[in-house]
Amino acid sequence: MRNVYLSEQPLEEARQEYLAFLAREGALAPGPPEEIPVIEAAGRVTAAPVFAAVSSPHYHAAAMDGLAVRARDTFGATEISPLTLRVPDQARVVDTGDPLPEGTDAVIMIEDVHWTAEDAFEITSAAFPWQHVRVIGEDLVATEMIVPANHVVRPVDIGGLLAGGVTRLQVHPRPRVAFIPTGTEVVEPGGPLRPGDIVEYNSRVLGALVQEWGADFMRHDIVPDDYGRLRAALEQAVGTADVVVINAGASAGREDFSAALIGELGRVVTHGVAIKPGKPVILGLIQGKPVFGIPGYPVSAVLNAELFLRPVIYARLGRVVPPRRRVSALLSRRVVSPMGVDEFVRVKLGRVGDKIVCTPLGRGAGLILTLIRADGLLVVPRFNEGFEAGEMVEVELLRPLSEIDETAVVIGSHDIALDMLANHLKVKYPGAGLSSAHVGSLGGLLALRRGEAHLAGTHLLDEATGEYNISYIQKHLPGRGVVLLNLAYREQGFIVAPGNPSRISSFEDLARGGVRFVNRQRGAGTRVLLDYHLRLAGIGPEQVDGYGREEYTHMAVAAAVASGTADCGLGIRAAASALGLGFVPVAEERYDLCILKEYWDKPLVRRLLEVIRDPGFQAAVQALGGYDLRDCGRIMWEQE
Amino acid sequence: MRNVYLSEQPLEEARQEYLAFLAREGALAPGPPEEIPVIEAAGRVTAAPVFAAVSSPHYHAAAMDGLAVRARDTFGATEISPLTLRVPDQARVVDTGDPLPEGTDAVIMIEDVHWTAEDAFEITSAAFPWQHVRVIGEDLVATEMIVPANHVVRPVDIGGLLAGGVTRLQVHPRPRVAFIPTGTEVVEPGGPLRPGDIVEYNSRVLGALVQEWGADFMRHDIVPDDYGRLRAALEQAVGTADVVVINAGASAGREDFSAALIGELGRVVTHGVAIKPGKPVILGLIQGKPVFGIPGYPVSAVLNAELFLRPVIYARLGRVVPPRRRVSALLSRRVVSPMGVDEFVRVKLGRVGDKIVCTPLGRGAGLILTLIRADGLLVVPRFNEGFEAGEMVEVELLRPLSEIDETAVVIGSHDIALDMLANHLKVKYPGAGLSSAHVGSLGGLLALRRGEAHLAGTHLLDEATGEYNISYIQKHLPGRGVVLLNLAYREQGFIVAPGNPSRISSFEDLARGGVRFVNRQRGAGTRVLLDYHLRLAGIGPEQVDGYGREEYTHMAVAAAVASGTADCGLGIRAAASALGLGFVPVAEERYDLCILKEYWDKPLVRRLLEVIRDPGFQAAVQALGGYDLRDCGRIMWEQE
Repeated sequence: MRNVYLSEQPLEEARQEYLAFLAREGALAPGPPEEIPVIEAAGRVTAAPVFAAVSSPHYHAAAMDGLAVRARDTFGATEISPLTLRVPDQARVVDTGDPLPEGTDAVIMIEDVHWTAEDAFEITSAAFPWQHVRVIGEDLVATEMIVPANHVVRPVDIGGLLAGGVTRLQVHPRPRVAFIPTGTEVVEPGGPLRPGDIVEYNSRVLGALVQEWGADFMRHDIVPDDYGRLRAALEQAVGTADVVVINAGASAGREDFSAALIGELGRVVTHGVAIKPGKPVILGLIQGKPVFGIPGYPVSAVLNAELFLRPVIYARLGRVVPPRRRVSALLSRRVVSPMGVDEFVRVKLGRVGDKIVCTPLGRGAGLILTLIRADGLLVVPRFNEGFEAGEMVEVELLRPLSEIDETAVVIGSHDIALDMLANHLKVKYPGAGLSSAHVGSLGGLLALRRGEAHLAGTHLLDEATGEYNISYIQKHLPGRGVVLLNLAYREQGFIVAPGNPSRISSFEDLARGGVRFVNRQRGAGTRVLLDYHLRLAGIGPEQVDGYGREEYTHMAVAAAVASGTADCGLGIRAAASALGLGFVPVAEERYDLCILKEYWDKPLVRRLLEVIRDPGFQAAVQALGGYDLRDCGRIMWEQE
Repeated sequence: MRNVYLSEQPLEEARQEYLAFLAREGALAPGPPEEIPVIEAAGRVTAAPVFAAVSSPHYHAAAMDGLAVRARDTFGATEISPLTLRVPDQARVVDTGDPLPEGTDAVIMIEDVHWTAEDAFEITSAAFPWQHVRVIGEDLVATEMIVPANHVVRPVDIGGLLAGGVTRLQVHPRPRVAFIPTGTEVVEPGGPLRPGDIVEYNSRVLGALVQEWGADFMRHDIVPDDYGRLRAALEQAVGTADVVVINAGASAGREDFSAALIGELGRVVTHGVAIKPGKPVILGLIQGKPVFGIPGYPVSAVLNAELFLRPVIYARLGRVVPPRRRVSALLSRRVVSPMGVDEFVRVKLGRVGDKIVCTPLGRGAGLILTLIRADGLLVVPRFNEGFEAGEMVEVELLRPLSEIDETAVVIGSHDIALDMLANHLKVKYPGAGLSSAHVGSLGGLLALRRGEAHLAGTHLLDEATGEYNISYIQKHLPGRGVVLLNLAYREQGFIVAPGNPSRISSFEDLARGGVRFVNRQRGAGTRVLLDYHLRLAGIGPEQVDGYGREEYTHMAVAAAVASGTADCGLGIRAAASALGLGFVPVAEERYDLCILKEYWDKPLVRRLLEVIRDPGFQAAVQALGGYDLRDCGRIMWEQE
């Protein structure tokens, strides 16, 4: 019985049922309070309200440098009839913070007295009682509540507690989370890798998350797929931790294994929740401890931890998970999602004009890079088959909006120099960012037209004129103000296995049979270049094996060749060099940035321009190989 | 020469000049990169871009449990003419994650095959090449940039780095911040306090902040006001740290002392910035290290650290300080601020109806409790004398808006039971909060009318009817739907020194001379009660010494008596008990919560109601003394 899940409960139902069950079992209550020094309490959560033991100030303190007096001695002083007071009988010099001398009840600022002798001064206005005095308890009064229970202690709270005479306080203990990585094929990072080896890094991601959430993390060694050993590991974890996570391999067989074991030692409450990714999650309980079976794909593991583990940790800290900030965004591409599951789509966001544009990233559960690149999560609810391009959608932010506001959005053709640009921008302007989405040159121009980006990377050859980009812009962005800025000339050529074993040197070779080609997607400049040369050579697409296999980036083409799934692809030299592949140059082409004029004077674009013209950036691109930077940063053409 | 500042530069000018100066001196550049294990990198900042060393997956992996086949062997299979394949010649069983066997290029899901024999199965559709296969580099391709330089490493980045075969990386070293607390009168927390002693806690607040900001913190022992010893401490700090903070006493003399020393060992760039609080800050440099002289008042110290120290730490980490989120809020009270300075006013915020209401807290630089209570900062710019009540203002958030949205706002008369209510609410509903502002009973009703609160605490005696609150609500909230809910009956009486040395037992005693009274502000229920009884006794306000001295809370009245600045005040027993004072009961009064009907069914109010009716809460109030809870949680009256 494979791929059989005990249930596919809707997310909210599964979560609420499980949390309610844990609450009934007492598994959500914080552990016995721990007493710690206040000076070590930052980030901890109070287990009881804290009341001031002393008042602050604890004495009447001068609030200014000046002279402490008895207010009633000063009554009657005016500009016309100044009054003279004598030190020390009627007044005493005090500095800010000094206790008020016995019998005095006001301070006259030093600037407001006129010395008439060594020990005498004149004043021209009366002091009122308690002026410039910080009276006892002005800040806080003994017995006053400084912070309530279930309060996360911040740096300023530490100050208030110490001011109130409190040096130790009761906090909730950090929940201890044990993590058991399992799988015979799972290996520690850093060693040499054989096919089939899966690098264990989920424990490191979840470990860092769990610590961020206020818990302690204990990682078990990797346990192979052996029932007895996994059982022993689980029993040991349940004996020492408050919460246990088993990170199963990704296959259904494995989860059943975990589920059976949890069921044997305790109880499986839910196995399988209608979410994507992360569906095969197991929610259980052993000896009063919450136990999670979390699948192996990294995106599933992170999502499951956020959805199910985090609320448990927070509950045990007397807290609730704060909701993520949401923004409305314009969806740039259609998103189709199966009915019946809540799907969590990672998205890039960019502020373009007055709206936020949302572009979905890859959906696979194995793509950790999509979590790294994501600015937000778009949740497609289970009663919904998805959203159309151009729809407004609600997105949960994974990055502060202020960061997204400072990010330039480039959509279009991919070039490795753009990664370099993003890096150099971050070095020069740490607050700025460059976000790129790769949809090919034409896709970039169309995205500009739809207002989804500030600029587009494009290298579209006009076969009639031999000129790059201009005719395409005139056609697809008629009447829009743009600046066409050169980034680089670059070599395009055949990316082949090292040593060029298939001996590919011309476009004719693609049609000779036995050569598996990997193509770029329609609308990509490289695809236009291929079609142009195939036509020149009189070769039809049907003659090229693999013409229909489309990849979206140069690196994906190079990876296909490196992996042996293709013998040849058309792409730039930098991609071939990066993977140690062979390269047969066939053309030089111009790669430009098409920048909408409305953003030309904005800091977003000004900063980019500054970095593009920076010799350090240009040297880094030069070092990639295959680039000519003779026009880098030059305006090639403008359209009003 | 006291109180003489070298300058009073506007904030932005001072900050930019100082940072530009530090940049020229090389004092903002990160230190030499440190190489650390990726698994310890959470929260650290990359010093260089990180590129994948291996692709992930590093082999063609089955993405499903099923049968690995050669796609071309499956061509032609349809519902009408199924195709039979044999294991192991034409197909191999694979689990998710398994490497694709040599010669295969696609996976057929286990659900899609029909076994016809032990070693043979039928399919009814063709597989296309690479279906259900995670090809090499699908997640990330060797040489691809995983994260740029100046990137704060998050948990998911750790996963991506390990997936890319990276186990160590270069990060910026944490800046080391040395902190020297100074002052002969400054003492460590926790010991017995003598008048004039100042508890040193700024180092603990700034230490926790600095660590939150990514720096290491080194605290020097307290240095008395001795030039030689301070100089030695400073030289030692400059020798071992990257950034030095001298926390001077609050008086101008002290700052001059620090400034002279910084000038002697290095350079004072700015002394005195036109901000409030925090004006006397010193910005300097010694041996290439930024050195700050920060005044002693806690609010000044925190503000100075935020404004000047934080950007320096962030720069040395290759980062910029993220701007705080801002919201528009309706100002509930007038704020007057001196021209020429940027003033930072701590405010409470509450979401009332569709707007956010902003109420200023105390302005003193010594009031750390205002930082603890604050939800936001209202900046009054230097070319502005303040804002009027009812104006919309921009507020920087110190707490997430989601938390403010879950906070019930009660404005009106203060009662200690409200603190208890806030605490019990937080225990029962960790995500909820109760924010109270104390403006007296009448002030509370007027705040309700203006839409600044959800409910008001009120105990206003109608002298004509002897009834509480109702006639005041009818007068000040005519036609508004409200529910009047009882919280408690409580004793009002004279709060006097322990043992009642002035022998005060009746209102007549207040007029007998030699008794210094402390009053509540106009509009307070307690003030109404006083006036009522004075009139009954035939006593005029001018006969009561201290009638004009107004405090805003019972605790402030009790504190005045405890400190000896008054002999007597009218207030509740709990306040007297809290400070160990004497109490002479004179009346029982009814303390109600006046709740706007529009919020009655909202979770904000429902949760409060649940806690008010909770026996645990009522027992805690009972234990305070002076309360009768016979009607606690009962609806006393309603107005449609």
